[in-house]
Amino acid sequence: MDMVSDFKQWMAAIQQRTESALAARLPAPATAPQRLHEAMRYAVLGGGKRVRPLLVHATGELVGASPERLDRAACAVELIHVYSLVHDDMPCMDDDVLRRGKPTVHVEYDQATALLVGDALQALAFQVLAEAPLCGSAAEQLDMVALLARAAGSRGMAGGQAIDLAAVGQQLDRSELEFMHIHKTGALIRAAVMLGAHAGEPLAVADLERLDHFGKLIGLLFQVVDDILDSEADTATLGKTAGKDAEHDKPTYVSLLGLTEARRYAEELLAAARGTLAPMGSGSAHLLALADYIARRSF
Amino acid sequence: MDMVSDFKQWMAAIQQRTESALAARLPAPATAPQRLHEAMRYAVLGGGKRVRPLLVHATGELVGASPERLDRAACAVELIHVYSLVHDDMPCMDDDVLRRGKPTVHVEYDQATALLVGDALQALAFQVLAEAPLCGSAAEQLDMVALLARAAGSRGMAGGQAIDLAAVGQQLDRSELEFMHIHKTGALIRAAVMLGAHAGEPLAVADLERLDHFGKLIGLLFQVVDDILDSEADTATLGKTAGKDAEHDKPTYVSLLGLTEARRYAEELLAAARGTLAPMGSGSAHLLALADYIARRSF
Repeated sequence: MDMVSDFKQWMAAIQQRTESALAARLPAPATAPQRLHEAMRYAVLGGGKRVRPLLVHATGELVGASPERLDRAACAVELIHVYSLVHDDMPCMDDDVLRRGKPTVHVEYDQATALLVGDALQALAFQVLAEAPLCGSAAEQLDMVALLARAAGSRGMAGGQAIDLAAVGQQLDRSELEFMHIHKTGALIRAAVMLGAHAGEPLAVADLERLDHFGKLIGLLFQVVDDILDSEADTATLGKTAGKDAEHDKPTYVSLLGLTEARRYAEELLAAARGTLAPMGSGSAHLLALADYIARRSF
Repeated sequence: MDMVSDFKQWMAAIQQRTESALAARLPAPATAPQRLHEAMRYAVLGGGKRVRPLLVHATGELVGASPERLDRAACAVELIHVYSLVHDDMPCMDDDVLRRGKPTVHVEYDQATALLVGDALQALAFQVLAEAPLCGSAAEQLDMVALLARAAGSRGMAGGQAIDLAAVGQQLDRSELEFMHIHKTGALIRAAVMLGAHAGEPLAVADLERLDHFGKLIGLLFQVVDDILDSEADTATLGKTAGKDAEHDKPTYVSLLGLTEARRYAEELLAAARGTLAPMGSGSAHLLALADYIARRSF
């Protein structure tokens, strides 16, 4: 079997076990309050490429973490990601009606339910991360909780959303755009890598820093590719409304650099990310393949 | 000095140290994103009776916890409480314009900012709870994180809000109303007591259960008194819009039991709460005084 089909199989297996792990951790739809639990499951299950869970598992493999523990870390970071999508799609934010090919939560249910779904998913993320042993020591597990909380909070993802809102109709320079994306998308992708890194054998500081830098680079790469795809794709391919950035007059890498230069920048980030992992040896194969996947994806 | 003025002084001291602890843990208004951080401080600081922090400290005193550790547990639970108020006031929920005598966050700022303020405050709550030692062992601290996450989530506070929404215009019986309030208000008040209980010397299981039962009773008491006040008070006294329950056709203890019977029920809950703590001795004086305060308050 060649490396590409091995990676595809691995990816499908992780996506499948992530789906099962999420389904097991979400309250059953028959549990009261039923409408809220139904809506939480609607938001989380049956969609998404599970990029952050894939990163948790690929990094965790590198440090010999158990797949069961990685499932829980993967669930936590994916629950934070999904809650942010649900809130981001609401009328007072991006006002989007389509997500992962389905009506968004506030369209399928209502705005109040969408608000509560997001709130409850965030709480569930921290519950999943704290409720059972996840790494070598409880003290390190507390560090993981704090790490995810910082990545989700006002100096991480939520802060990035705020910068994004303030940027509508503004002329940003490249460093301002980068600052926004390092927060909005980058913080949680970086946290996914670091949660995986903490879930296994203790790492040398130099290796932890390498993984952290890798996470930062692919977080940015993810956003640059996102901007390229949004400028090119149509709604059916993307599974969400395409061309929203231009319509909302949001600054993007494409609007700032042009399409050719944005593509070149993505290749540059990919090369830097690959270079960062070079000293870590063959255990990083899935992580490297994931970086390629993030760079070459069409969703 | 008599007991009443001793309690008032204690309460003022805890409220003041809670205010300082919250101010120290919230990002500075000069930190980017500035508008978000300003709005977070606007939502949290300079208001509120800090009932949940008072409960954390009163319970923590009973088990010999250090005031500095209790400050952090108190901040965490208050941050969850404030985030829930910010989201609850939004137009898609209760659509309220006044809170603690000031314009609500979505009125003073905008809806998107209110949404992100709530999201970021929830993340900050878990960050504060996980970031530094809080009790005897890291394992027990993880239990505290999980306890707060469950209390905040879909089978706790957020679930209670969902039940509340679904109940508008419905005829609830007493047990359904109780189920709603045990989640909506009760879960976080109970969590405040239990966070205090976990922050000190390990307790016998019987004593932990006693405190948990006490927390459940005063959580319910808090809500019954809330309903009584809402039916009686005017907006100026309450610091929030009065009479909203009736206006929104929400079931309350007053609409279900009548005012006289609701008052009798509050007295019954207070007596039961006091009785629960009787075996715990003189260390519970502030906790008992707090139960009286919750029953007799006028805000």
